[in-house]
Amino acid sequence: MNSPPNKLNLEPRDSVPPGAERVIADLRELAALTSTAEGAQRLAWGPVWRAAREWLRAKLSQIGLTPAADAAGNNWVTLHGASDKTVIIGSHLDSVPNGGWLDGTLGVVTALEALRRYSNGPKPPVTLKLVDWADEEGARFGYSLLGSSAAGGRLKLNEIRDLADAQGIRLEDALRENGVELASMLDAHQSLKRIPAKAYLEFHIEQGGVLESMNKSAGVVLGTFGLERHMVRFVGQAAHAGATPIPMRRDAFLAAAATALECREIARRHSKPGAGVVCTTGVVKVEPGFVTAIPGVAEISIDQRALDATVLAAMVHEAQGAARRFAEENHVSVEWRQLFRIEPRPFDPQLLQLCEDSVREVTGDAPKLPSGPLHDAAVMVPHMPVVMMFTCSSRGLSHCKEEDTPEEHLHKAIRAFLLLVDKTVAHVSRK
Amino acid sequence: MNSPPNKLNLEPRDSVPPGAERVIADLRELAALTSTAEGAQRLAWGPVWRAAREWLRAKLSQIGLTPAADAAGNNWVTLHGASDKTVIIGSHLDSVPNGGWLDGTLGVVTALEALRRYSNGPKPPVTLKLVDWADEEGARFGYSLLGSSAAGGRLKLNEIRDLADAQGIRLEDALRENGVELASMLDAHQSLKRIPAKAYLEFHIEQGGVLESMNKSAGVVLGTFGLERHMVRFVGQAAHAGATPIPMRRDAFLAAAATALECREIARRHSKPGAGVVCTTGVVKVEPGFVTAIPGVAEISIDQRALDATVLAAMVHEAQGAARRFAEENHVSVEWRQLFRIEPRPFDPQLLQLCEDSVREVTGDAPKLPSGPLHDAAVMVPHMPVVMMFTCSSRGLSHCKEEDTPEEHLHKAIRAFLLLVDKTVAHVSRK
Repeated sequence: MNSPPNKLNLEPRDSVPPGAERVIADLRELAALTSTAEGAQRLAWGPVWRAAREWLRAKLSQIGLTPAADAAGNNWVTLHGASDKTVIIGSHLDSVPNGGWLDGTLGVVTALEALRRYSNGPKPPVTLKLVDWADEEGARFGYSLLGSSAAGGRLKLNEIRDLADAQGIRLEDALRENGVELASMLDAHQSLKRIPAKAYLEFHIEQGGVLESMNKSAGVVLGTFGLERHMVRFVGQAAHAGATPIPMRRDAFLAAAATALECREIARRHSKPGAGVVCTTGVVKVEPGFVTAIPGVAEISIDQRALDATVLAAMVHEAQGAARRFAEENHVSVEWRQLFRIEPRPFDPQLLQLCEDSVREVTGDAPKLPSGPLHDAAVMVPHMPVVMMFTCSSRGLSHCKEEDTPEEHLHKAIRAFLLLVDKTVAHVSRK
Repeated sequence: MNSPPNKLNLEPRDSVPPGAERVIADLRELAALTSTAEGAQRLAWGPVWRAAREWLRAKLSQIGLTPAADAAGNNWVTLHGASDKTVIIGSHLDSVPNGGWLDGTLGVVTALEALRRYSNGPKPPVTLKLVDWADEEGARFGYSLLGSSAAGGRLKLNEIRDLADAQGIRLEDALRENGVELASMLDAHQSLKRIPAKAYLEFHIEQGGVLESMNKSAGVVLGTFGLERHMVRFVGQAAHAGATPIPMRRDAFLAAAATALECREIARRHSKPGAGVVCTTGVVKVEPGFVTAIPGVAEISIDQRALDATVLAAMVHEAQGAARRFAEENHVSVEWRQLFRIEPRPFDPQLLQLCEDSVREVTGDAPKLPSGPLHDAAVMVPHMPVVMMFTCSSRGLSHCKEEDTPEEHLHKAIRAFLLLVDKTVAHVSRK
C-alpha cells in the first residue's frame, strides 16, 4: 500500500490533477524495457508483451492492486469505491513490431496514474477499473481488437479458429501459451456484462496530423468512423501498347484510376466542417504489368470512412455508381468484394461534454475530431457510455519508431485526461 | 536447281502471283517442326531456332540457293539478277518462348516463295536478297532488333557486352556458340553498305486489331511509330487511411492516376484520322501498398508513340506538364526517367504507293495504318527505301500460341505481298 518515494514534482496546478511527469517517466521506463533500436516490440502473446504486463503488475503491486485476466486474456484491475457503479479506463500494452512508445501504452500508463491517485486518497465514490486489452493491434495474427471483441461479445470464434502467424504458429496455440482457451474466450463477455459500467474512457495518441496542424495538445474524439472496405476489380483486355489504337482499348487501369479519383471527390462532397469523411485507395495492382501491355486487369482497394452511417452508405453507393460508369466508358467489367465493414460508433453526448470541459480547462480550447483508426473504445459503445481523448501525434506518424508527441503537449493532454477521470467519477456518482 | 514436284494448286489467278497455298503449307511444316503444345519455341541463338534455319537452308537448296551469314548472324540469300540493284525482302525466324506460328516466319517464308518464283523463271532484271534477321525479338537477352541493328550500324557494343539471360549465360557466349563474335558484329554494317539496295520489303502480321476490326486481309504500313518511354515517380507521404483528412494528404497514387488519365486525353487530342497516336500506362506500383495506408510513392510507366516526330515531342511535353500540375495539386514531387526512345520511321512514298496498289488489286481496298510495334524494317529506313505490308491478326493477339490469321485473309495478303515484290522489282529495274 505504500507508494514509492516521489522524486517528481507533483504539485497541483490550479484545479487540474498532477501526475503527468510520473506518467511520462513511466512511459519512458516501459519503452526502455520493451524496445529495440527499431522501436517497440510488444507484440501480443509474445515474451516482450508479457514483460510489459509484468512491469504493469509490479507498478500496481506498489499500490496494493493486482490485475486479473478474463477469459480472453484482458487484464482487469479493480479499485473498489463506495459504489459498485464503475468507470472503466482502458487501453492496450501490445504494439506492432517496430512500433512507437505511446500507441496504447499512453492510455494504460495514464490509467495507472489515475488509480494511483485514487488509491492514495479517500475511498472513491464509485469503482474504477483499468482494463489492459489483449491484442488490440492484431499485428501477428491479423485480427485486431481481439480481446475487446471477445469482451464485447462480437468475436466470431470460427473467424479466428484457423488463424496462424507468419511462422505457421496457430493463434489457438499462442493463446494457450498465455493461459487463454480459444473455445471459452467469449466467457469474457459474460464477465463484462456483470460489471455495472457507467462510463468507459480511453486516452490515445491521434495517429494523424489534425491536432498537430492546429497546434493543439488534446482533442475530443467524437466517435470512431464507420468503415466500408472493398477490393474493386476491373477486367478489360490486355493488348499491345503500340498496336492498339485508343478507341479499341479496354484499359482496366484507366477505369480504376478514374474511379479512385472520383471516390476522393465523393469524400470531398460529403465532408462538412467538423464532420470530415475520408476515402483511400491504398492497394493498386495491374496485370500483366509490362511497359508494353495495356492492363487487362486492375484491382484497387477502396476504404471509405465516415462518422455518420447515412453518409457512409451514400458514399459507397456513389462509389459503386462511379465504378460502373467508368467501367462502361472503358469497356471493362467491374466487381466489388467486401473486405471489412464496421458501423460508425459515435460517443456518448454527456461524456463528450465532460471531455470537452476537461480539454478546455487545461488547454484553453477543445477541438473535436473523429477517430479514423478503430480503437477498443468502439467495441464498448453498445455496452456503456464511451468517450475518448486524443493527444497530438508528431507528423501524424504512428506504428513506427518515430512515433512521438512533444513533451509539452503530452503533459497537458495527460492532465486533461486525469481531469476527465475526475469529472466522470463525479458525474457517475451523482447519477 | 530443280524445284520439288508441286502438289499444290499454283495456277495463277488473274494478274496476281500464285504461291499462297505453298507459303501456308510451308508455315505449317515449320510450325510443326519448331513448336510445342505451348506454341513456337524458336528462341534466338538456341537449338530450335537453329533447326528453323536448317529447315530454311534445306528449302533454299531445292532452288539452288544457299544462305550466308554476316558478322552479326543475319542470314542472307542472294538471287542474282541482270542488274546489281537489289531488292531486299526481310523478316526473322526467331520467336518469343510460347510464341505464334506467324510472327516473323510469315515474312521469311513468303520471301522464300518470292525467290522460288523468280528462280523458276528467266533471270530477274534486278538482284533479290532474302534476309533472315537474327534475334529480332530480344526475348532471351532483352535486346530486340539485335541483328538488324548491327547491320544498320546503330548497335552500341557496350550496351550489349554484359547482357546475360535468366540462366546467367552471357550473350557473348551464346553468340560465339552460333559463330558470331561480339567484337566484330558491326562488320555486318559494312556488308550492308556494300549492297546497292534500292528497296527493302517486309511482310508481317499486324499484332493488333485494326485490320480485323475493318475485316481487311492486308494493310499498307505507313511507318513505325516513334516511341518515348518513361517511368514517372511521384513521391508524397504515406499516412493512415483513417487518421488523415483529405486536405492534409500527399497522395502519390492519385497524382499518378490523374496523370495517366490526362496522358490518354493528350493522345486523343493529337490523334487525327489515319494518324492515330497512342499512350499507355502498363506498369503501376504503389508503396507501401496496404489497404490502410495512403500511398507515399507511386510509379507508373508512360509509353507514348506517334508517327510524326513533332507530334511525339509535343505529347511528351504536355505529359510532363500534366504530371507537374497533378504533382502540385496533390502536394507530391515528380521525377521522370527515360527507359527507351526511338524516332518515328516513316516509310518511302514510292514504295508506299506500290504497296497500296498491290493491296488494292488483290483485296479491293488498301487500308493504311502505322505500326505500333517496332520491326527490323524500321532499322533499314535510314539506309534505303522501305515499306511493310501487314496482314490481320485474329483478336489482335501475338506472342502467344493463340496468334493466328484466318486462312482466307492470309491467302489474300500473301498474294498481295508477292505482287508487291513484282511491282518493286519492276520499279527498281526502271530506275
